[in-house]
Amino acid sequence: MAFVVVKFGGTSVGDIERIKNAAAKVAAEVQKGHKIAVVVSAMAGVTDQLINHCKAISPMHDPREYDAVVASGEQVTAGLMALALQQRGINARSWLGWQLPLRTDSTHGRARIIDVNAAALRKRIDDGEIGVMAGFQGVSDDGSITTLGRGGSDTSAVALAAALKADRCDIYTDVDGVYTTDPRIVTKARKLARITYEEMLELAANGAKVLQTRSVELAWRYHVPMQVLSTFANAVGSELPGTLVTDGDETMEQGSVTGVAYTRDEAKISLVKVADKPGVAAAVFGPLAKMGISVDMIVQTSSDDGQATDITFTVSKNDLDRAVQALESERSRIGFTKVITDRNVSKISLVGLGMRSQAGVAATMFQTLADKKINIQVIDTSEISLSVLIAEEYTELALRALHTAYGLDAQ
Amino acid sequence: MAFVVVKFGGTSVGDIERIKNAAAKVAAEVQKGHKIAVVVSAMAGVTDQLINHCKAISPMHDPREYDAVVASGEQVTAGLMALALQQRGINARSWLGWQLPLRTDSTHGRARIIDVNAAALRKRIDDGEIGVMAGFQGVSDDGSITTLGRGGSDTSAVALAAALKADRCDIYTDVDGVYTTDPRIVTKARKLARITYEEMLELAANGAKVLQTRSVELAWRYHVPMQVLSTFANAVGSELPGTLVTDGDETMEQGSVTGVAYTRDEAKISLVKVADKPGVAAAVFGPLAKMGISVDMIVQTSSDDGQATDITFTVSKNDLDRAVQALESERSRIGFTKVITDRNVSKISLVGLGMRSQAGVAATMFQTLADKKINIQVIDTSEISLSVLIAEEYTELALRALHTAYGLDAQ
Repeated sequence: MAFVVVKFGGTSVGDIERIKNAAAKVAAEVQKGHKIAVVVSAMAGVTDQLINHCKAISPMHDPREYDAVVASGEQVTAGLMALALQQRGINARSWLGWQLPLRTDSTHGRARIIDVNAAALRKRIDDGEIGVMAGFQGVSDDGSITTLGRGGSDTSAVALAAALKADRCDIYTDVDGVYTTDPRIVTKARKLARITYEEMLELAANGAKVLQTRSVELAWRYHVPMQVLSTFANAVGSELPGTLVTDGDETMEQGSVTGVAYTRDEAKISLVKVADKPGVAAAVFGPLAKMGISVDMIVQTSSDDGQATDITFTVSKNDLDRAVQALESERSRIGFTKVITDRNVSKISLVGLGMRSQAGVAATMFQTLADKKINIQVIDTSEISLSVLIAEEYTELALRALHTAYGLDAQ
Repeated sequence: MAFVVVKFGGTSVGDIERIKNAAAKVAAEVQKGHKIAVVVSAMAGVTDQLINHCKAISPMHDPREYDAVVASGEQVTAGLMALALQQRGINARSWLGWQLPLRTDSTHGRARIIDVNAAALRKRIDDGEIGVMAGFQGVSDDGSITTLGRGGSDTSAVALAAALKADRCDIYTDVDGVYTTDPRIVTKARKLARITYEEMLELAANGAKVLQTRSVELAWRYHVPMQVLSTFANAVGSELPGTLVTDGDETMEQGSVTGVAYTRDEAKISLVKVADKPGVAAAVFGPLAKMGISVDMIVQTSSDDGQATDITFTVSKNDLDRAVQALESERSRIGFTKVITDRNVSKISLVGLGMRSQAGVAATMFQTLADKKINIQVIDTSEISLSVLIAEEYTELALRALHTAYGLDAQ
């Protein structure tokens, strides 16, 4: 018997039939004798509709009221899921964020979880009831509804699993696991049976959209194994495994490339002929940080004459215009001659624990891209990843070539 | 300066434009220096959609979960209304039932209000903030969301007005007041400037759909003046008065007919040749009461021979089939020869405080109907009303004739 927190995403509860189908999956787990708590997202499309209502009334909406409006989506699904479970003869009830309570800070719209009081829920689960928690929402100390930000339901589920000391947190979604790369682009992509939290984080941070980085961070911190499963591919009661996200073990320390991620969400900014003197990086990136603009890849080329240098970095495409404005307004203080921007770029990332200590990993990447005549614009490395920025049009070609080069292709 | 609770019904907040329009009306009241609390219904259609979701999953749904789902509609509107007010530069925030709290018993789906703790809301209003309360919802002592039943937002508004000791409760709806009769049928119907709680209750109980009887009862008990106003006919800031529902005063004790109501919602049942002995009424109506079927008009004709009698009564058309089944299953115990039912009936009611003490009111009604060859099937009276059951096809004719006969026609 295991104690499992089961989370269903928006497409998995997208309409009444899908809610019933999800309830059938929960029922199958209950049949096996598992103790279950369920976490649900809003029905697909509902959150967007509620956000649009808020925007239509007020472009700069009060985040407290935004949260009260938007959190209603998960409230509806939680009630409907409880009803669907009851309809199958299962004792179930819904829990809203404030009912648990799942306490957060007051940063409406992207609140951080302070703690989850799962005592009352736990007692009812031990008494044979299924708890259905509305994901994405919590309550602040002043009694206001808060939301955790986009994709927050994954985070809710992991937080609940940690609070309940559950054995596992199953994330039902519209893909059946984590792949070596995007299977829509690379047909030979393989589903991974296991992946470490660290690698999953790096994949997510570099464009893989399966899990929210925040939920993986939380799972890692509390050592909650997460399993990514498809709601649709898995027939009720069948045991098609997804991908288990967990701590690394010996066999995983082989230092190979685990996956290849990509993102088209970044844009490149180059500042030409910046004065090459101490404090210039602070002058460039300070104003961006103040506006809440995150910078990802950064390279600074050494100057020929020691007088001026070029600085190139990437920001989210959404932030590009604001970033350029901020830089232009600081032009005299920073002292550059020109800003060059490029939206047509793509970031390709190799991810793998211990990969960096393997000789030749980087060389293989550079050679593979060179063979395909793909120019590398920026290179960035982390402990377990190696990323390059290339022209967007080469994205698919680069992914396929690298996937093959690192022996990731399915047989 | 007055302290007013302003309630907007579902059509008044039916879409984003209408919510903005309602906010403009509130802003105009604020401009005049009034202190305002707002109560909102769900956007028109939303509650029905949520109820349909519940039904689609489970025909016999758990009322606790039903309430959690359905209450989300008012939550959304409360947040959006607060945003719309803020957009006009007004300091506003939403209050959900559990946040106030508006405490109710645990009768999910039709909970009764225990009390409204308006202290925190009141303090904020005194500090210049507008409170927007989600109507229709409360919280039970075990921390579950409850709903007050159909039309419960009117009741929420009156309860809040009572708790806040507000001067008035304005109910904005899709009609501009209470009329002497249905203006869609009788073009000469007049809007009443004032009406007593008692008369309003009797009109509502007899088919007038402007206000929920429950909200009027509550207003009467706490002497909260209610005003019925149109959201649409009244331009923002203009002062087209609606109908004030309030305590009676001297000038109102004139004992005339105030209005003529009608309902097509009832069906007639006649039991033929029931044994004329003690206990027979209990044998007939006991089984109906046990099934929760309300009986409205009742007449028992005296029998010629003292052996058998006919009993005729009305029930809601929705309950007719169940009522007949219940009676048939008790036939041997009740002892009747036949059940005759008629769906094609209409109940016409005269309503007026002190009307019954006026000589000739009843005679005028009977003569007026006789002149139009309309047969009276059943007669029923209360302290302030006189109702007759007639064939449904004569409804409009009867309404127009009576409206003229009692001098109610607009000049």
